[in-house]
Formats: sequence, structure tokens, C-alpha cells
Amino acid sequence: MQTKAYAAATAKAPLAPITIERRDPGPKDIVMDILYCGVCHSDLHTARGEWPGILYPCVPGHEIVGRITAVGKDVTKFKDGDVAAVGCMVDSCRTCNPCEHDLEQYCTGPHGFTGTYNGAAKGGLPNTFGGYSKRIVVDEHFVLRVNHKAEQLAATAPLLCAGITTWSPLKHWNVGPGKKVGIVGIGGLGHMGVKLAHALGAHVVAFTTSASKKQAALDLGADEVVISKDADEMAKHAGSFDFILDTVAASHNLDAFTTLLKLDGALTLVGVPEHPHPSPSVFPLIFGRKSIAGSLIGGIAETQEMLDFCAERGITSDIEMIAMKDIDHAYDRLLKSDVKYRFVIDMATLD
Amino acid sequence: MQTKAYAAATAKAPLAPITIERRDPGPKDIVMDILYCGVCHSDLHTARGEWPGILYPCVPGHEIVGRITAVGKDVTKFKDGDVAAVGCMVDSCRTCNPCEHDLEQYCTGPHGFTGTYNGAAKGGLPNTFGGYSKRIVVDEHFVLRVNHKAEQLAATAPLLCAGITTWSPLKHWNVGPGKKVGIVGIGGLGHMGVKLAHALGAHVVAFTTSASKKQAALDLGADEVVISKDADEMAKHAGSFDFILDTVAASHNLDAFTTLLKLDGALTLVGVPEHPHPSPSVFPLIFGRKSIAGSLIGGIAETQEMLDFCAERGITSDIEMIAMKDIDHAYDRLLKSDVKYRFVIDMATLD
Repeated sequence: MQTKAYAAATAKAPLAPITIERRDPGPKDIVMDILYCGVCHSDLHTARGEWPGILYPCVPGHEIVGRITAVGKDVTKFKDGDVAAVGCMVDSCRTCNPCEHDLEQYCTGPHGFTGTYNGAAKGGLPNTFGGYSKRIVVDEHFVLRVNHKAEQLAATAPLLCAGITTWSPLKHWNVGPGKKVGIVGIGGLGHMGVKLAHALGAHVVAFTTSASKKQAALDLGADEVVISKDADEMAKHAGSFDFILDTVAASHNLDAFTTLLKLDGALTLVGVPEHPHPSPSVFPLIFGRKSIAGSLIGGIAETQEMLDFCAERGITSDIEMIAMKDIDHAYDRLLKSDVKYRFVIDMATLD
Repeated sequence: MQTKAYAAATAKAPLAPITIERRDPGPKDIVMDILYCGVCHSDLHTARGEWPGILYPCVPGHEIVGRITAVGKDVTKFKDGDVAAVGCMVDSCRTCNPCEHDLEQYCTGPHGFTGTYNGAAKGGLPNTFGGYSKRIVVDEHFVLRVNHKAEQLAATAPLLCAGITTWSPLKHWNVGPGKKVGIVGIGGLGHMGVKLAHALGAHVVAFTTSASKKQAALDLGADEVVISKDADEMAKHAGSFDFILDTVAASHNLDAFTTLLKLDGALTLVGVPEHPHPSPSVFPLIFGRKSIAGSLIGGIAETQEMLDFCAERGITSDIEMIAMKDIDHAYDRLLKSDVKYRFVIDMATLD
């Protein structure tokens, strides 16, 4: 099955139209016409070869919302015409301990989970191609139901990565009413972290380096905004946080946040910095049994839980819609954090 | 009340005899004749002024076992003649959230907990004096019952710091049957970590840089010993540990251990390094929801729990008894890790 897509031919090439091969759908597969695809910073890292092991041509995109056009004979969750979504994973071993506990993102099978792009493809194809394309074939286990309204579908796409990447740690570390929660960085991930932590009932403090983002963070649902460069303002919050979700991938001082945690608090990182963070001080960890942790996207079951939670409450991402041909310009703007807060490609523009 | 002690007069001075003042016992205080006092590396750091804020003269010692010789009128837990113990704390605010949850070591009162030495003393005295002395006066809340046999009392003393510092994180991170647990470093703390994790029913792997310590670690109760400098041997354990307790205070590579943790595993540090550890990689934390945490001694209730657990099973520290006058020589040997595994001062030698 052939489909149109947009691909980087090399790490140096701008993205351009290409025709790719999708596998013939098997009995558990669905075929989806892609309507919208969010633009994640990982897309840029991958397309431009900033991470090791990238195969070309490379078709990025793992925040996918579309309409199902065909289902295999053993598919039970979906039928033709359903609106559905695909996130960062399209397969995993299904048998390891994490997979059996609905934590496919931590699959310890021989190859880990299969990324939606640049993963090992089935059916003799070289590597998986992502959502910058017209159609995709995915095992139904890795396909999500979408109950958002038709007019919300574009803004739903970023929930598949930015949404679940913040939801999963917020839930794992028991964020809810009575908890004081920090969200560091107000970008693609952080703006979802603020929305979701607020919707979960926590007292939300947004941390940003830019005073200019203050009102925007309040509008997203933050109860307070702290300028993290302001030591006096930071000091007022010492020892008071149950949990801080740090969405900033650039190298920065973690001690500024561990000192704000209370007893047994956790600072959880969701970004891998290109250059290491300065070595964190052990002192605040020991004198408060605190931890620095990490978290990776989320499992399929909790992704569905998050999508259902958001659909019920009308929660979506704040997006700027772009045409497929403008993707390289969008990447350049992404590098300057010049987007509020996520680009989404209208896949109708691929033709 | 005057009592004989051994003190550092300055950071540069060897320890020497001194007569110190103890407060007059109040209604909740006990008076104890000190029989034995363990020698913790913190004693050395403090006596030699390697930490900030040390007041002189300095009388170290916070692994104290002795016999009660007098009790205040409101004391309920102890009577004259009881064998009892005092650890790292002699007071705390008693009213903050951690204190109310039996976690006095994390007291968030205005001064934190009061250290057994170099803390703020009551009764107009300059600062607290520790266990390198004949007598001590302590509020009964911070005094522990000791049920070990008479011949075990010297070897019980190190449980008050080395024991509880390893016990508290082992319990907090649910070490027990079915868990694979690493203990990094086989010194004063680490040898207790191995003994306690083994007694709690875990599969215990001791990590040491010295092949020469292998048999000794097995004798302490380790099921396996891994030479942490051997990359091949380390790689065999990748992704397999539920919990690793790192007792090494010297700067070292933490990634070597975070990569050995399984999903949701924790690497918990109990030592503050003089020079920072190399910045740990975020990658293994994110790809496994792992954490790097810290832990500080333990609360009074759990110290009692640990002492009772050890008394029932005959668990003590492996010690080398010394005379009070040999303390500086012991410090020098401590710096070379030349002790198996804890020096204990026979306080009868102070006279």
C-alpha cells in the first residue's frame, strides 16, 4: 500500500514530498487516514539527525489523529469511520513484565517498544514512518479512541505526546487535590502539564524564566507563576512542593527545584538534555528523602485514560495550525520557542 | 553536672581529655553512664572542622550505648539500671509535620533536629557534646531501649547511626523477600546494609571496588558480590535491581548503578560527597521511571524497630574495640578504610 508523505532524505535536507510503502494490514491492524499531526521537538531531533541511529528517508510525526478507513478481521476496538489516534508507539513485545502491566513505553523486550517513526518496521520494510503522511497502518492495541468534538480534533493531536508525557508522571506521583505541584517550563509539554495538573485539582505553580509568560501561564490554569531566575521569589517556596514536573530539556540547575520540594517530594524530568545538567547537590535529597526521577511518555491504557479525561472536560492543546509544506519553517520557529504552544499539521495540505 | 570527656579544642588539635558541663536533668530527662561509643566518619569530619559551623571544644560521638543512672520524675519509658542507647539526635521541634509522623530526622522546625553533638544545647550551654564522654543527659523521647545481650553491647553501638542509616531506606523502599537489592560500598554503613537487607529476606548483591573484599561481603550475608570496576560483570546485572543503597560518600559515577535498576527502581544515597558526583545521566532515569534519592539516618520509632529487629536476630556490627586515648590513631585508620567495620570506644578507658 503506497501513501504520500513528507520526509527528510538526509539529516541536512529540508523535508519534501515522498511516496512511502505501508505494510498490508494484518488481521489486528487498522488503516487510518491521518487528519492532523502534531509537531514534537523529537521530530526535529530525528529529522535533522541530532540523535544517533536515524535511518533515512525519515518521516517524523507521533501525535496523530485520523479516521479509520479499514479494519482487519480480528479488530474488536474499532470500526470503519471511527475517529482515532496514534501516539509515540506502534508496537512492543507484549510479553515482558512492563508490557503486561500496561507500561509498553518501558518494554524490556529485545528491541524495546517500536517507535511510530524510526522504529523497526514489520513486513520487511526498513523502518517505521510516522504521521507526516496521508495514511498509516497500526495494530489496534496501539490505537486510541478519540471522543473529542470534531472541531477539537486538531488540538487533540498533541495530547498523544505532550499530553501523555505530562499526564503519566502527574498520575504516577499522585497529583491531585491538596497537592502543591510545580511545572517547570511553559512550552509544548509544560503548557499541557499546567492544564492537566490544574484539571486534576492540584495547586499549580508554573516556573518560567520569562516574566512575559506570566499572564499566559495563569490563563492556562496556573494558580501562581514564579520567575525561576528570581532567587528571592524562589526562596519563598522552599520546602513546600509535593511534586515538580520539569519539562525543560536544556541543561539547567536542578538544585533550584530540589530545594523547593518538601519531605519525600520528587523532581521528575521528562527531557533528556543535550549537555548534562550541572551535577545536582546530594544535600537536599538526603535532608528530605527527596528524589530526582525520570518519566517517559505513558502506556496505552493510561493514554486512553488521559484522552477520555480530556474529552470529558474539553481539554486540548493550544495550537497553531500549519500546512505540510511549511514544516521546515515551523522547525526553525520551534528552535526559537516561537509557538504557543504546539504546531499541528493539517494533513489535508499534503496533497 | 560535670563529666569527663574527650574533645577537639580546635580543628587542628588532636582529641584530648576535658571536663564538660551537662545540663541538670529535667523531668523528662534520663542520665546515662556511657559504656560504649561507636566512631562514625561524621565524628572525624566534625572534630577536624571539615564541615561548616563547628563549635569548639567539640566532643563527637553519636553511637552511644550505656546504663541509665537516674530518671526525671515524668520519665515513663526507662528506670534506673536500664541499658539504653542514644543516636544522632537528642531533640527536635516535636510539632512539625515530619516530627508528628515519627520522622524527627527531617524536622522542619526553626532549627531542625538537635544533633547529639555540635547542636544547640539546652540550659544555657554553648552546644551539645556527644558520646566521647562518661555521662550524658537526654530527653527520654530520644533514648532507645536495648534488648541485646550484655556481651553484644559494644557491637550494638554502631546500630545507632550505621544501622539506622541503612535500615531506614531499606524499609522505606520496601526491601524484603523477592526483591533484588544492591549495597554499594562495604564499610561502616555498607556492612550493616548487607546484614540488614539479608535479614529482611532480600537477594543481596554487594558492590565493591576491591576484589579483596569479596569473601568478607559473602560472609556478611551477600548472595553475590560484584566488582564495580568490572564493566562486564556490571553489565550482566543491567535492569535487574529493585533498589540500590549507595553508602559511598566519595564522588563516583552514579550511572553505573542507575543502569542496573529495573522499572521504578531507586538508587538511594546516604553520603554527601565532598566533591560532587559526576552529573548523572538523565537517560536511564527517563527510560525506566527510575530515581536517584537520598535518605538521612532514621526516626526514633524506626530506630527502636531496627534495634528490636536486630536484638531478636542477634544482629550487631562487626567492630574493633579501642581505648579512648587511641581515637586520633583510629581516625587516621578510618581515612584509609582500615577497619572491619567500625571502631567502638570502650568508655571505661576514658578514666
